[in-house]
Amino acid sequence: MRSEFDFIQNLKNKYGLSKVGDDCAVLSKDDQTDMVVTADMLVEDIDFRLDWTTPELIGSKALSVSLSDIAAMGANPVFAMISLGVPESCWKTQFVDKFYDGWFTVARHYDVELIGGDLSRTPDKIVIDSTVIGHIAKGKAILRSGAKPGDSIYVTGELGGASAGLMLLESGFRYGKSNQRKKQLISRQLRPTPQVVTGKQLSALGLATAMIDLSDGVSSDLLHICKMSSVGARIYFENIPVNSNLAEFSLNAEQQAGLALSGGEDFELLFTADEKKISQANFQGVTRIGEITASLGIIEVVHHNGVSSLTPKGFRHF
Amino acid sequence: MRSEFDFIQNLKNKYGLSKVGDDCAVLSKDDQTDMVVTADMLVEDIDFRLDWTTPELIGSKALSVSLSDIAAMGANPVFAMISLGVPESCWKTQFVDKFYDGWFTVARHYDVELIGGDLSRTPDKIVIDSTVIGHIAKGKAILRSGAKPGDSIYVTGELGGASAGLMLLESGFRYGKSNQRKKQLISRQLRPTPQVVTGKQLSALGLATAMIDLSDGVSSDLLHICKMSSVGARIYFENIPVNSNLAEFSLNAEQQAGLALSGGEDFELLFTADEKKISQANFQGVTRIGEITASLGIIEVVHHNGVSSLTPKGFRHF
Repeated sequence: MRSEFDFIQNLKNKYGLSKVGDDCAVLSKDDQTDMVVTADMLVEDIDFRLDWTTPELIGSKALSVSLSDIAAMGANPVFAMISLGVPESCWKTQFVDKFYDGWFTVARHYDVELIGGDLSRTPDKIVIDSTVIGHIAKGKAILRSGAKPGDSIYVTGELGGASAGLMLLESGFRYGKSNQRKKQLISRQLRPTPQVVTGKQLSALGLATAMIDLSDGVSSDLLHICKMSSVGARIYFENIPVNSNLAEFSLNAEQQAGLALSGGEDFELLFTADEKKISQANFQGVTRIGEITASLGIIEVVHHNGVSSLTPKGFRHF
Repeated sequence: MRSEFDFIQNLKNKYGLSKVGDDCAVLSKDDQTDMVVTADMLVEDIDFRLDWTTPELIGSKALSVSLSDIAAMGANPVFAMISLGVPESCWKTQFVDKFYDGWFTVARHYDVELIGGDLSRTPDKIVIDSTVIGHIAKGKAILRSGAKPGDSIYVTGELGGASAGLMLLESGFRYGKSNQRKKQLISRQLRPTPQVVTGKQLSALGLATAMIDLSDGVSSDLLHICKMSSVGARIYFENIPVNSNLAEFSLNAEQQAGLALSGGEDFELLFTADEKKISQANFQGVTRIGEITASLGIIEVVHHNGVSSLTPKGFRHF
């Protein structure tokens, strides 16, 4: 079966869509400013389950995943729209009110204004489409296409937590009845933190040559950068910053790093940059996990016992 | 049960949403230009049925309904995003390809560029969220709030056709096996034409004081203008331009005009204007159906046998 990535690539080629293919489309606003815009669809029982989370957390995550795309451009989020479809049974409950409560909690934190959207009925499942518009200084948006051989590869924060949280939920664990480590992992899955501040710092300082947010997993998302930049990458497996709560599981270090490499929804940033510049700027909170190579589309993973090539195992809808 | 209109009004009040409440939000682009933006969600078995239409027509309608919102501001559509969620069974067919074929047929006609969106999996129903961005000269967007007592009320085209087409589909008629009149009515439902050119003319000539697109029906949409403008309206029942194909049905003139007044999805424009200016401009293709009054929120309907007040009967999700 064709993947959604192949489908979108074909669509780009067929219709000549030059603005499609990054975390956000970049449009010219005025002489000083560019506008970036992104849309994300979240569907009940595909992207969230009502018995795993709360209406407030669904609302907050709906905005956060789009803010993460804005962050991946280095932009400042400004406006948002939310389209929400719910079945009539859900409309009669407090779901929609609580959803917006959660949504506005995040919106206020990032000073994002709701400017529109839609409210619709669905036959039986909840559907959300989240749109966010951001602003960034002219020409400063960080694309996926700017990585060059020799650039170092960095990630923010720790990886694998959201994926482990999903595993816990799938295994029947729930936030309320879990220990502290499990709570933190489940929270990584249900309440992601978009790296808006770090994204803006990286663009303001001109440090990142390419950037993407980690929604599908390092293995999948790094491949997007490699394809768009016509480069390859080498990852040092031992350098991957593994979420410390993964110690909760009976996994060896290799298994933990594997989860961190393939697990999606951490919503951290992955970016490429000149190592010297990052060092000179004393940029905090990021980990160097590898470097960009000239081996087009090939991602090598260096383990303590050798080198293997990486097969993307991140999240795919199709 | 609370209506979606009440819910949105409460949300506006609770969170101070000044940009919500028109067909599009208006944002400042640069010194010369404003940007307008709209989002519309379409859901299988609520807004369309697969056995009534084709994938191409679903794609074309998804864009057209948003273009109609852009038209209602008097703006020029420029960019669009489409978020599409389909079940896996649908992904394996040609549905998505044909959907985009239909979408791009309309996009090319109006010179709209696809800049992003999302492609997602759903459990069983198709869901679409359509976003369109338009441009308009600074301060020239036509809002719902500008109607003044004494303004005349106009509509473009003929009304009631889309609603009659829906009735035909619900009664088991299908496009392919229908006579010419029925085909035209079904086509009004499945292939609406956004009034982009007329909308742009009205803003360019500065003729309309308030405008809305007829998505829910005259009775419902005119009430939005009255509420936002703090005015009332008087409609002349006999003046309503009824779709000539309604003669297909065994309805008297009153019943036909009733359908034209309450039926949704005609995607014509309803606007208010100074009658002299419309006349002086020799503006074609519009019909004067009434006038704005000072009776806040009250819509009177003048029949040949008297006056009644109008109860909105347009489409509502909740």
